[in-house]
Parts: sequence; C-alpha cells; structure tokens
Amino acid sequence: MIYVTRKAHFNASHRLHNPHKSDDWNRQTFGKCNNPNWHGHNYVIEVTVAGEPDPDTGYVIDLGRLKKIMQDRILDPCDHKNLNIEVPFLKDIIPTSENLVKAFFHQLEDDIAVSASENSKLYSVKLFETERNIAEYCPNRAH
Amino acid sequence: MIYVTRKAHFNASHRLHNPHKSDDWNRQTFGKCNNPNWHGHNYVIEVTVAGEPDPDTGYVIDLGRLKKIMQDRILDPCDHKNLNIEVPFLKDIIPTSENLVKAFFHQLEDDIAVSASENSKLYSVKLFETERNIAEYCPNRAH
Amino acid sequence: MIYVTRKAHFNASHRLHNPHKSDDWNRQTFGKCNNPNWHGHNYVIEVTVAGEPDPDTGYVIDLGRLKKIMQDRILDPCDHKNLNIEVPFLKDIIPTSENLVKAFFHQLEDDIAVSASENSKLYSVKLFETERNIAEYCPNRAH
Amino acid sequence: MIYVTRKAHFNASHRLHNPHKSDDWNRQTFGKCNNPNWHGHNYVIEVTVAGEPDPDTGYVIDLGRLKKIMQDRILDPCDHKNLNIEVPFLKDIIPTSENLVKAFFHQLEDDIAVSASENSKLYSVKLFETERNIAEYCPNRAH
Amino acid sequence: MIYVTRKAHFNASHRLHNPHKSDDWNRQTFGKCNNPNWHGHNYVIEVTVAGEPDPDTGYVIDLGRLKKIMQDRILDPCDHKNLNIEVPFLKDIIPTSENLVKAFFHQLEDDIAVSASENSKLYSVKLFETERNIAEYCPNRAH
Amino acid sequence: MIYVTRKAHFNASHRLHNPHKSDDWNRQTFGKCNNPNWHGHNYVIEVTVAGEPDPDTGYVIDLGRLKKIMQDRILDPCDHKNLNIEVPFLKDIIPTSENLVKAFFHQLEDDIAVSASENSKLYSVKLFETERNIAEYCPNRAH
Repeated sequence: MIYVTRKAHFNASHRLHNPHKSDDWNRQTFGKCNNPNWHGHNYVIEVTVAGEPDPDTGYVIDLGRLKKIMQDRILDPCDHKNLNIEVPFLKDIIPTSENLVKAFFHQLEDDIAVSASENSKLYSVKLFETERNIAEYCPNRAH
Repeated sequence: MIYVTRKAHFNASHRLHNPHKSDDWNRQTFGKCNNPNWHGHNYVIEVTVAGEPDPDTGYVIDLGRLKKIMQDRILDPCDHKNLNIEVPFLKDIIPTSENLVKAFFHQLEDDIAVSASENSKLYSVKLFETERNIAEYCPNRAH
Repeated sequence: MIYVTRKAHFNASHRLHNPHKSDDWNRQTFGKCNNPNWHGHNYVIEVTVAGEPDPDTGYVIDLGRLKKIMQDRILDPCDHKNLNIEVPFLKDIIPTSENLVKAFFHQLEDDIAVSASENSKLYSVKLFETERNIAEYCPNRAH
Repeated sequence: MIYVTRKAHFNASHRLHNPHKSDDWNRQTFGKCNNPNWHGHNYVIEVTVAGEPDPDTGYVIDLGRLKKIMQDRILDPCDHKNLNIEVPFLKDIIPTSENLVKAFFHQLEDDIAVSASENSKLYSVKLFETERNIAEYCPNRAH
Repeated sequence: MIYVTRKAHFNASHRLHNPHKSDDWNRQTFGKCNNPNWHGHNYVIEVTVAGEPDPDTGYVIDLGRLKKIMQDRILDPCDHKNLNIEVPFLKDIIPTSENLVKAFFHQLEDDIAVSASENSKLYSVKLFETERNIAEYCPNRAH
Repeated sequence: MIYVTRKAHFNASHRLHNPHKSDDWNRQTFGKCNNPNWHGHNYVIEVTVAGEPDPDTGYVIDLGRLKKIMQDRILDPCDHKNLNIEVPFLKDIIPTSENLVKAFFHQLEDDIAVSASENSKLYSVKLFETERNIAEYCPNRAH
C-alpha cells in the first residue's frame, strides 16, 4: 500500500453558528468564532490516495489529475467564498473543521475512484484551519 | 544597531472594495477579493524594533512587553473580526496588505517608543496575508 | 472517525542520563546529549483526539478546551523548566522523546476523556524535539 | 508502540520515462516531467521506526545511528545525483515518488532491524518531492 | 515606502561548470555540484516591489499581475527545465544562485515598471536554492 | 551587491541573569527566563555575506566554505552546550539574542573576510531563539 498526498490552499470566511440554537447558546459555545460579521482563514487541505502504483506509470494517481479534481470539487467552490452561505455542498452544516473534512471527502471520493490506478481510492482528507488547529477524516483506517 | 522581531498571528475576514467607485470598477479591479460575502485570512504579523541593547538587561526591548503591545493594539481589535467594519483604526481605508501595514505601524509606534531601550524605536511592520503575499512598511530604511 | 489536532510549543532544558549506569556508559551511549551542564530545545507538541463530532457543535472537542488542558497539564509544568529535575511527573524517567510522549499521553488522557464529545478520546501525542527528530505515542492505532 | 522519525534531505535530478513505451506515450503521460534534459528536486525524506523503547536508554533507536544508516544507504548514493542513471538500486524503476519510497524502504530495513531496540523495526518511509507532492510507503500499517 | 513581495516556486536541473576552465578545476571548485549528469532543486523565488500604494486601489502592484509577470518571465522558461542548456536568458552564465538572481532581476524589471503604481519599481529578487542556501539581488538598497 | 545566506541550527541551554544585580531584580526583569535550573532552545542562525560574485566561480562565497566557518566558529563551541558557562567567547555577556548575534558576528567576520570574493564581507547575523523571537545584527546597513 502506497499513500500519495497532494496539498493545496484556499482562503474563505465563515462563522460557527448553529441556527437551531439561541444566540446566547451560540455565543457561549463558539465565542469569537460566532462573530456575526464573520472571520476567515487560509485553509490548507491535504488529500491522500492509497493504492498500488500502476506498473506502466509508477503512479498511484497522476498528481496533475488529483490537483485538477481538488481544484474543481473544492477550490473553485470554496476559494474566496463565505463557507456558510455560498457553497452548495456545505449547506446545512456548521463549518467546523470536523464537518468540513467529512464534506470534502464525499466531494472527492467518486472522481478519485475513477482517476486512480486499479484498487486505489481516497484515503484521507486533512484540513489545517490554522497552523495549530487541524482536522482529518480517514474513514477506512483501522484506528 | 540591532533588530529585534516578534511574530504573531490573527484571523480575520475582509473584502477589497473602494466605496467611491462603482461596483463594476470594484469587480474588475479586485476580482474575487471583492466578494460582497467576504473572505478571510490567517494573517501573520512581524514587528521589528531597532536600537542598542540596554546594558543591564541585554534587551533592545523586552519581547514579553512587545508581545503585550501587539496584543493590545493589533490582535485584540483585529482577531476574529471583520477588518472593513469592526476595527476603528481601519475605518476609511481599503484593507489591502499595503494599507494594513501602514495603519499597524502607526498603531504601534508610540507604545514601543515608551517601552524600548533608549534610542530604540519601531523599525518595520511586515504582514503575511498568505504565505505567498507579503507587505512591509519600513519608513526609516534608506531604500 | 475524525481526528482533531492541536499544536503547542514549550522551551526546556534536559540531559540524557541513566543514573543506574556509570558516567562512562552514559557518555558513550548519549554523547553530547549527556552534557552535565544541560542543553535544551524548543519542543513542539501535537495532541490528537479521535471521535465523532457532537451534532450540536460540530466539534470532536472544543479546541479552546484542549488548548487549556495542554496548558495546565504539559506547558505550565514544563515550559522554561529543566525536565530532569523540575517536573514531578517526569521524575524517574530518562527524558528521551520516546519517554516524554508516553508520559505526556498519560498526563492528558483523563482530562480529555471528560471534555471530548461522547465516544471520543485521546489518540496520539507527537513531539518534535527538533524539526528533524520526532517521536509519537499512539497506543490504540492498529500498527 | 512508539514511533520515532528522522528527517533528512537530498538534491537530485530525474525524469519520468518508461523505456518500454514510445516517446509519444511518455510525453503524453508524464508531460513536462518527461523532459529529456532532466529536472530536479530538493527531496525531503522521513524515516519512521516503530517499537518499544529500550529500558536502559529510553531509545527505540539511537537517532544518531538512524541518521548514519540514512546517510550510507540513501543520501550518499542519491545526493547530487541523477536518479535515473547513477543509483544502482534504482536501476529499472521509473523514479516516481511512489517507486522511490518502496525502493528506499528496502534499502533501509535490514540495517534498521539490526540497530533498533528489540521488537522494533522500520515502519514507514515518506518522501516530499515538493512541499505539495508527497508519497509514503508503510507496508505493515493496517490501512 | 512599502514593500510588496510575491513568492513562487519551480523545479529545475543544473550543474555548476565553467566551460573556460579545465575539468579538474571544475571538479575541485564545484565538487558534487559539478556532476556531469546534473542534479536539481525546488527553487523558491521571492520578488519584492517597492513604492507607494495607488490611492484608488491601495495596491503598490496588483499581486495577480505580478504573479502573471513572474509566470511569463521566469516560471514558464525555467520550470522543469535544465538551467544550463534550455533557458535562453541564462545562456553564458554559470547557474549559481548569485548569477540567477541577477538574471531574474533583469528579466522582471521592465514588465514590473509598467505594471506597478507610479514611482514604484522592482526592489529585490531572492532565491532559495534549498532551505539553507539563499541569494538576494537588491541593487538599489543602500547597503 | 548580492547577498548570500547560509542557515544552520544548534541546541543549547541558557538563562538570562545579570550577576551584578540582585536575585530579586533578575527574577522581576527576566521572569521564567531567569530559572536557575536553565531552559533551552533550538537556535536557528542565518549568516549573510554581501559582495560581488567572483567571475570564475559565480560565487560571492563558496557556501561549503561558509558552512565550515559557521561549524568551527559557532556550532562546535555552542551546540549541546550551556551558553552561560561553557562558551569562552560568550563569557561576561548575558545571553539574550541581542547579545548573541553581536558576539557571533565578531566570531565570524575575520574568517569570512579571508574566504569571500574580493570586496565581499559579512553583512548580517540573524538568530531565531524561537520561531517567534528573532534578533539580527547588521552593523553596516544604512538603517
């Protein structure tokens, strides 16, 4: 099993807010992350595909192809956008890093399955909200 | 002359928009940075003070004191805020990195003059909007 | 399963020395790391919690809460300290990175179990002694 | 189980080319990475050894010893070299990152088995071709 | 005076070789950097423009425009290329970092003069051959 | 004028303490940096030499030669040492970053003057005590 990772970044605004709860609950739970005037981040995303290299190319997946999938499925909809109100596939979730990595994983897995070498598939999506705050979704890892 | 630098970071939302110009001009000039729903960044700020170390302490400036000044004058007003509408000292400027470093410099220089060793003063403010886009204001450097 | 990581740093002095062995053995085994006058590091610690996000908050664990636990249990006792002689929970171990990550894990796991979302728990502690020398303790990973 | 990692780097030239295929196929498959005049990288390699610390030393493996093994088995043969034509153990493979990590793993595993503490062994080899393109070989991880 | 910097990267192969000197002199002077089979690097380039922000835009230079100039004048001719034999504007120089930054500066200065705000101009070109080896050309700085 | 920089690192212990002052003054002035049991850092040092490249080599200074000078004059005496009591050329100074960069500059300048190309000389010494706390000595820069 070989793991291939491609890194990219995008900038976006967001706020943490659960619309089914009161403003007080939101302020107390999310603190300054609940600011109604938004704040934002330079997000860094790492996408890892696991599989066996194709014997003809030596590639688990052509990283140029993976870069294009990440551009189409994540960066184009999210870059310089408001994650709460402008990204269709994030509708109805609170944009914590935990929820974002799960949503990004589902955005990517079908396109990657088609493009990777036989028996290869999306393994993990990791998101750096800041250098110090990181979330990863890795559903097939024996934890 | 010795140069002492302290680094810090904050997260904020903003948009580039000149209210004295038409929406069309703004869209054409600022592109996706003009998004009316905002976007955001993890800003990194580096503040440099120049001077001679105090002979008793070996400090140009106590970096704990400099950290506190940066916290009070920049991070508290800007962190997790909307730079266009929530920061009094940024009112009336377009929040490009160029304009931000100049405004931050003026926010810091008096407090630093009081706290640094004799003959020392604020030398430069550098801002990383992203890892790849950087601005610096350094008014006393012979360029 | 989602993995949430918080990074922090502290500075400390230490030496590698096994008091049950001769000075000669220690010098030969640990080389310059055995220096009786100590040396030191800027340690970077990464703490990872694994679990399912709470549906109300979207959090596996509130990273502000995790930051506080790391501050109380690791950074306050270790920062700007001598790891061999000033940290009660490191008494009787040789402060190699391997032994430190294990000790840090046990320092953190109870507080994290109380604070994380249901079914979540401490997953891994990773320590960068330098950028090039790294240790990780991850007892529940199927290796 | 504790995981100990040592990082190193080397510079090399290479091209991606499958000699059993036509020039057209190679150009179409590998694009600018197929340039017959070569291109190159600052490779960063991370080698991870897993095991239990030796009770006398607190070491899974002496990182000075691991550094020496990496120097002898990887850096000396590869640094400032052409990976396609000057490295005996890379003969007959296309030097993609996927193929490199597998070859590096086999170069290292015996020497590490001899040097690590009892029950410890090489766990993973990770290679950064650039900051954004990464491959890892980790054959014993339950994926 | 405000300084605006844009960072980019490219990968290339090269060797250090003075064709007017003997092979022996070259081997002795340049060591492993003289390898006739080439080696290579992930070069990082930082381009700094100095000037006053335009009052309408708040820009010293539109960083999107600067990115395009760097792409056209440096990255397109150099990326995934052999710097000794494939880059017309590097013909007849030894591709040390010192010589590269000077050549890159002259490649960029006219296009930047046209695109930057009034009274602004190219100030410095900095090149990281590796993380540890860096050269900068900054002809107008009072050193 | 071209500026060439070489980066290196070393680990050391130290404390900030002025022996001509009372213990109380020291505790109040230096806080936890005054800990009598020492603390430590992974120091990163950047040494910059300025001059014109030699026409035969394209070098301002052979970076292999500069690396050797830094090894002999700074790293060998300081690495894994106690900066207050084990480094002869730091005797009688308080080891703040400000005082260290000045002492390092004087350690390096003669050897560099001999090794650099004609008209070249040591320009600056920069020291990262942590990623966030930095000092630079640059005596010939028009500030």
